Amino acid sequence: MSIGVNSSIAMKKKQNNNYHYAVILAGGSGTRLWPISRELYPKQLLALTGNKTLIQETFSRIEKIVPKENIYIVTNRQFTTDILLQLKSSGFSREQLIVETVQKNTAPAIALAAEVIQEKNKHALMLVCPADHLITNDREFKKSVLDAFARAEDGKLLTLGIAPDSPSTEYGYIKPKGKINYGTPTSVECFVEKPPKDIAEAYIKEGYLWNAGIFVWSVKAFRAEVKKYLPKVAYALSFKDTNKEKFAKYFSAISPVSIDVGLLEKSKKVEVIKVKFAWKDIGSWKSLYELLEKDKSGNVLNDDALTVDCQNSLVYGSSKRATVAIGISDIIVVDTEDAVLVVHKNETHKIKSAYATLKAENKTQYKEHKTVFRPWGSYTVLEEGVGYKVKKITVNPHEKSSLQMHYKRAEHWVVIQGTAKATVGRDTLYYDAHQTIDIPVGVEHRIENPNDEVLEIIEVQSGAYLGEDDIVRLDDVYGRNI
Amino acid sequence: MSIGVNSSIAMKKKQNNNYHYAVILAGGSGTRLWPISRELYPKQLLALTGNKTLIQETFSRIEKIVPKENIYIVTNRQFTTDILLQLKSSGFSREQLIVETVQKNTAPAIALAAEVIQEKNKHALMLVCPADHLITNDREFKKSVLDAFARAEDGKLLTLGIAPDSPSTEYGYIKPKGKINYGTPTSVECFVEKPPKDIAEAYIKEGYLWNAGIFVWSVKAFRAEVKKYLPKVAYALSFKDTNKEKFAKYFSAISPVSIDVGLLEKSKKVEVIKVKFAWKDIGSWKSLYELLEKDKSGNVLNDDALTVDCQNSLVYGSSKRATVAIGISDIIVVDTEDAVLVVHKNETHKIKSAYATLKAENKTQYKEHKTVFRPWGSYTVLEEGVGYKVKKITVNPHEKSSLQMHYKRAEHWVVIQGTAKATVGRDTLYYDAHQTIDIPVGVEHRIENPNDEVLEIIEVQSGAYLGEDDIVRLDDVYGRNI
Repeated sequence: MSIGVNSSIAMKKKQNNNYHYAVILAGGSGTRLWPISRELYPKQLLALTGNKTLIQETFSRIEKIVPKENIYIVTNRQFTTDILLQLKSSGFSREQLIVETVQKNTAPAIALAAEVIQEKNKHALMLVCPADHLITNDREFKKSVLDAFARAEDGKLLTLGIAPDSPSTEYGYIKPKGKINYGTPTSVECFVEKPPKDIAEAYIKEGYLWNAGIFVWSVKAFRAEVKKYLPKVAYALSFKDTNKEKFAKYFSAISPVSIDVGLLEKSKKVEVIKVKFAWKDIGSWKSLYELLEKDKSGNVLNDDALTVDCQNSLVYGSSKRATVAIGISDIIVVDTEDAVLVVHKNETHKIKSAYATLKAENKTQYKEHKTVFRPWGSYTVLEEGVGYKVKKITVNPHEKSSLQMHYKRAEHWVVIQGTAKATVGRDTLYYDAHQTIDIPVGVEHRIENPNDEVLEIIEVQSGAYLGEDDIVRLDDVYGRNI
Repeated sequence: MSIGVNSSIAMKKKQNNNYHYAVILAGGSGTRLWPISRELYPKQLLALTGNKTLIQETFSRIEKIVPKENIYIVTNRQFTTDILLQLKSSGFSREQLIVETVQKNTAPAIALAAEVIQEKNKHALMLVCPADHLITNDREFKKSVLDAFARAEDGKLLTLGIAPDSPSTEYGYIKPKGKINYGTPTSVECFVEKPPKDIAEAYIKEGYLWNAGIFVWSVKAFRAEVKKYLPKVAYALSFKDTNKEKFAKYFSAISPVSIDVGLLEKSKKVEVIKVKFAWKDIGSWKSLYELLEKDKSGNVLNDDALTVDCQNSLVYGSSKRATVAIGISDIIVVDTEDAVLVVHKNETHKIKSAYATLKAENKTQYKEHKTVFRPWGSYTVLEEGVGYKVKKITVNPHEKSSLQMHYKRAEHWVVIQGTAKATVGRDTLYYDAHQTIDIPVGVEHRIENPNDEVLEIIEVQSGAYLGEDDIVRLDDVYGRNI
C-alpha cells in the first residue's frame, strides 16, 4: 500500500536526521528600524518584505532541514509571548524556548543552547542561525547546511560565508585561507569587524566573504572549544542542572561576548563554507529601501502613503492616519499610530540617537506599539491621562484572558462586537454588543470569547495607578506568571 | 474728579467715531496650511505666530479704531461656533455675526455687510479687513485706517497698498497713478492678479504696491457703486428685509465674484493709500517658515519636534506623538494627532492636490481635527469602527451640553475627572470620577459641569449609525438649532 511505503520512507528520513538540531537566536532588540521596531517588538517579529515575520520565515526554512521538535529558540522573557503566538500554527511549543534570564551576547546564549541539546543527544549536530535575517533561496540554504552537517561530523566548526554583492559596511567579513570554492569547507585566516567602505572594497577584491552569523557544529566539538576558550561560561553551565543558585550566580557574572570574538576567532577548528543563497541582514531603513522593489520614480510606498512628485524615497503610511509626502527626494518617511520618522536616506544611522532621547524621556514610543499582542488577542491603548486609560480589546474566538484582579483600578467594559462571556466575582454572564460590564477594584474577573466571531470591547480603566503590573493572575490557560 | 474727566473724554471719543464700522471677512476655508488647517478649521482660527489666533489678533487690532459693537464678522455657518468661542472674552456677540447661507466670494459678502451697517447708520464709514492676515504694527495700521476714513467722507473708495519687501508671486498688485507718497490717497491705474516672479520684480521697480484686501469707504458711496457695477447683487439685497424668499432666491443666483474684479477694477472712485505697517497673508508653509524666527541651523521647531542634524527645515511635532526628523534639509514636517505632512519647502503649492485626494476619498483628515470645539467644551474622537465610536469629552466649568436625544445610538459615559450633573430621562443625578452612566437609544439626556474644575468623561457610542447629525436638540443654552 502506497501510504505505508511513504510513511516508512518518512520514518527513515526522520531517523536519519534526528540528531540534527537547530538553534534560532531571537534575543536581539532592534532600534535601527524604529518606529516599526520597538524595544519590545524587534526586527525578528516584523514582516518586512512579505506576509510572514522574519522569525516565521526562519522557522519554516529550518524545519525543511531539521525535525521540527529539534528546533530551539533562544530569547529573553519579554519576547516569548510574541514568538509563541507567531509560531503557534507551525507547531512550535513552549518547551522549545530557551529563555535567557540575563543577556550575555551570543557566545553564552549559544553555549547554553548546546547544553540543552546535548542533554537530548550527545551526538547532536547543531545549526545556529539568527532569527532576523533575510534568505531568499531555501533550497540552496538547505544544501549548504547539509554540506556543513556532513563536515561537522569530523569535529569542525563551520561558518557559512556569503559572496558579497556590494562592499557593505554593515557586515563583518571572513577571510578564507587561500582560494575558496562554493560548497568546499576551507580553513579561516581571520574574522574582521564591519569595515569602512574603502577597506570593504579591498576585502571584496581579495575574496573575503560576509560573515552571516550562521554556524554548524557538533555539540561535542563545540562544548570542548567552549571549555577551552570560554572557561567561565563552561563553569557556569556545569551547574545548570545540579545547582540552580550557583548556575544563576556564575552565569550572571559572565562578561557579555559574541561567538565570533569569544570563540570563532580563537578556535583552530573553524572552517568556512562559501554558499550560494542570497542573504541580507537588514540593518537600516536604507538597506531595506535598497532591497525592496521600487516604482518608476524609485519610490517604495505602501498602500497608506499618499505622495505627490516624490523620488527615490520610502514612504510607509499608517492606515489609521493620513500620511502625505510631497516633492521629496531620498527621504524615508515611516508613519505609525503613535510616531513618525522623517530621515534622509544617508542619515539612518542617526536613528539610534533619537531613540536614545525617547528612551531617556521615557516616552512609550521607544518601547512598544499602541497595539500589544497577548496569547488571547490584543489591546490598543486609545488614550491615557491622569487617573484613566482607554483601551480597545480584541479577544480571539474561543480564547480567554486570565482570571485576574487589580488592586488599584476599576474597569468598565462596553461590548462593541461579538459576545462576551464575563466573569465578575462569582457571576458569569453573557453580554452582547452595546451592553456594559463594571468591574470594581479588587474583584476578580475574566473575559472570554465563546463564539467563532472576534470579540471587541472598549475598556475604560479608572484609578490612581494604572500600570500593567497591577495585575494578580489567579488562573491562566497560557501558563503566564500566576 | 479725575475719574469723571476721563470718563467724559472717553464718551466724547466714542461719539466722534460712532459712525465708524468694520467688517471682518472670515469665511475663507484654507487648505494651504493643511494639516494644521482643515476645511472646518481654517487659517483665521489658528494661532500661527503667537498665542492669539489670527481672528483674535484682527479683532483686537480693529477695536482700537472702531467701537467694539460696530465690528461685524461675515462668515459661514460652519465657523460660527469657533469664532464665537474665540472672541467670547473680547465681548463680541452673536448679533455681530453676519452668516452667509451661500458663499459668493467677497463682493456679495461685503455688499451684504454694507446693507446691515446702513440699517444702523446711513452715514456710516466702513473698514473691510480679512480675518487671516498678519499685521505687526497696530499703531501704523490705526493711522492708515483713520487717514482712509477721513478721505472716505468725500465719497472715495479707499484701498490700502503695502510697499513690497520682496517680489512675491502670492499677492495681487495695485498700480497707483503716478508717484505715490505714504499716507496720501492717490488714484489707481489698475489692479493686477498674482504675477510670475520676473513680472513681480518689474512691478516693484515700477512702484506697484501689494493689494492687502483692506478697504475703507462710506456705505453710501459703496452702495451706489454696487448698484452700478453689481446690479444683480443690489437687486437681491433690496429684498433683504422685505421678502426673505426672494432675497434667498436672488442672492443664491448671484455669480461668485471678488470685490476686486467685481467692483474695484471698474469704479472710478477708487484710491490707494500707501501704508507703513508690515503686512503678510500667509499663503503657504513656505511663507510661514520664512516669517518665523530660525535657530542657528535655520530651523523652525516646536517643543514637540525631536530633530537630529536638520537644516533650514520647519518641524512641528505633535504633543500626542513622537515626531522625529533626522538629517533633512529644506523640508517641512507637520505632524498632528491624525495626519502628517512631509513636503519640500519649494513644493508646498502641491498640498492642494493631496488635499483634494483626501477629500475625494472622504477621509476625515481634510475636514476636521480629532478635537472639535463646542460652546460647552470639546470632544476628541479616540477611535471609531463599525458600530462604535469612542470620544473623550471635556465640559468646561459651569457649562452644559444641549438636552438631546439620539434615535440610533446608545451612549455609555465614564467620568474620569471632575463631577458630572447628568440628566437621563426624568432623573438628574451627580456622578464622580469612576462612575458610569448609561443612556439608552431614544432617551433624552444632558451633561453639565456644576463645578469650577474641568469635567472629563469617556463616551462609548454604540449603534448602527453614529453620525453627528443623529441629534435632536430639545433645549440649548447656546441657541443652536433646536
